[in-house]
Amino acid sequence: MPMNLDSVGKVSDPGQRSWTSKDALIYALGVGAGQNDPTGFELEFTTENSQNLEQRVLPTFPVIIGMGGGAMPSFGDINFAMLVHGEQSIEVFGEIPPEGTVESVTKIVGIYDKGSGALAVMETESKYVDSGKPAFKVKMGAFIRGEGGFGDSRGPELPARAKAPETAPDEEITYLTRPDQALLYRLSGDRNPLHSDPSFAELAGFPRPILHGLCTYGVTGRALLHALCGSDPSKFKGMDARFSKPVMPGDTLTVRMWRDGKNSAIFQTVTQDGTVVIDGGKFTHA
Amino acid sequence: MPMNLDSVGKVSDPGQRSWTSKDALIYALGVGAGQNDPTGFELEFTTENSQNLEQRVLPTFPVIIGMGGGAMPSFGDINFAMLVHGEQSIEVFGEIPPEGTVESVTKIVGIYDKGSGALAVMETESKYVDSGKPAFKVKMGAFIRGEGGFGDSRGPELPARAKAPETAPDEEITYLTRPDQALLYRLSGDRNPLHSDPSFAELAGFPRPILHGLCTYGVTGRALLHALCGSDPSKFKGMDARFSKPVMPGDTLTVRMWRDGKNSAIFQTVTQDGTVVIDGGKFTHA
Repeated sequence: MPMNLDSVGKVSDPGQRSWTSKDALIYALGVGAGQNDPTGFELEFTTENSQNLEQRVLPTFPVIIGMGGGAMPSFGDINFAMLVHGEQSIEVFGEIPPEGTVESVTKIVGIYDKGSGALAVMETESKYVDSGKPAFKVKMGAFIRGEGGFGDSRGPELPARAKAPETAPDEEITYLTRPDQALLYRLSGDRNPLHSDPSFAELAGFPRPILHGLCTYGVTGRALLHALCGSDPSKFKGMDARFSKPVMPGDTLTVRMWRDGKNSAIFQTVTQDGTVVIDGGKFTHA
Repeated sequence: MPMNLDSVGKVSDPGQRSWTSKDALIYALGVGAGQNDPTGFELEFTTENSQNLEQRVLPTFPVIIGMGGGAMPSFGDINFAMLVHGEQSIEVFGEIPPEGTVESVTKIVGIYDKGSGALAVMETESKYVDSGKPAFKVKMGAFIRGEGGFGDSRGPELPARAKAPETAPDEEITYLTRPDQALLYRLSGDRNPLHSDPSFAELAGFPRPILHGLCTYGVTGRALLHALCGSDPSKFKGMDARFSKPVMPGDTLTVRMWRDGKNSAIFQTVTQDGTVVIDGGKFTHA
């Protein structure tokens, strides 16, 4: 059995990761900041020297700087070509500075038999090296196609996903992505040619390169930030969602948000033809 | 007299500059590579891991890695807010590797009274540190508004600029720039807020941020490369041109090329309304 159920509960060595102001700017541009606002350009996220604006960091940046850690226990002997990004959550404990260093530890939270495949859930906790304070917590669900059917699951019960209401959304923001969006997003770290090389994408069974799921996630996070946090990253607390379909660079992404109490919302992201690409989204804010 | 004519002929200390594959990718995306070719994405310039393609470097990259040097003699006690980029030439001695280190020396070639201002011409020669071989030569003409009228010029006679023929161009390529183009281009080094911050641009007398002249230069270089070198950077030898008008991010740039002998061409770049923004261009190739 390729999935290693005994890995559940195991923890990585601590690992350090630093980022610079430029890394944060590249990430912001990669998830489309500045593209949709010809007068404002989201300058606090896309520049470091605009008048009366300090550089601020998009609160989804932990998917870059808060993933991984030191040497990891293996959750299975799997074919990485069969792995797709299934779910992603982040919790942010205060605004992220434009440069810094975190120390992170990753834990294998659970491995679940989902029939057509296995879901492996890993959680990374990061703290700031200078202050020792908690920085963010990032949880990723990796879905490994073809590895299901082992009839066992280990780990805490998976929470039920939020269901998008039938009613019209309370807030809705539409952002275009660009045909070459992934060429820029990949500079934040994920250089998988599935997202850039048409001949590689074709071998993988796609008509053309698909957008990074985490790029769609970042675009969605910008919409949540602007619509529900008044564009203030210090109000962004948590974002949890499932990737339901691939996005093609150039697709239009509409983030639909339903308020769900004073400080939370349900969201989903759909493309121009109504395909739901991010689903079961739950957002919390101050 | 703020211009220091005695600086002509003076040479800087040698200075070293290294670049990485990522720097070259950021530059390529900054000058629009990948934006205009939804199937090909100029992948040899925008990625480092596409199938059957080695990463290659746009031959205008020396305007980033070949400018400056060590400590410079001063060409004048001037107000840098009055300085505009007037002219730019590059000569490339063989294809540039995706990563490397050059040592560069800058010489003040001449200072010229141009009436409404002074033209200071500086030339930087760079050689590869590992091989000692010549890498590229970059010449910049800085125009300092309001500093003319001193009635003297020092340095070799300025060559006459190529004049665009009245006939239809032999080759013509049109590239769009994007409203947020400068936000990406600036990550290659020139963080002057004139190119990103609307409130700063307004103070400087522009309705909105203007595009970096060297971004327009890089877009123009891509057109020359694709039209006249069969997209092969090893065939790109020299490019020399004058900046005649500012470009706004979002403008359409059409590069008009007239063959002028077997291995050379005259070129100019015009915007969507016919305004000539790069003029007197001379290009040489293998």
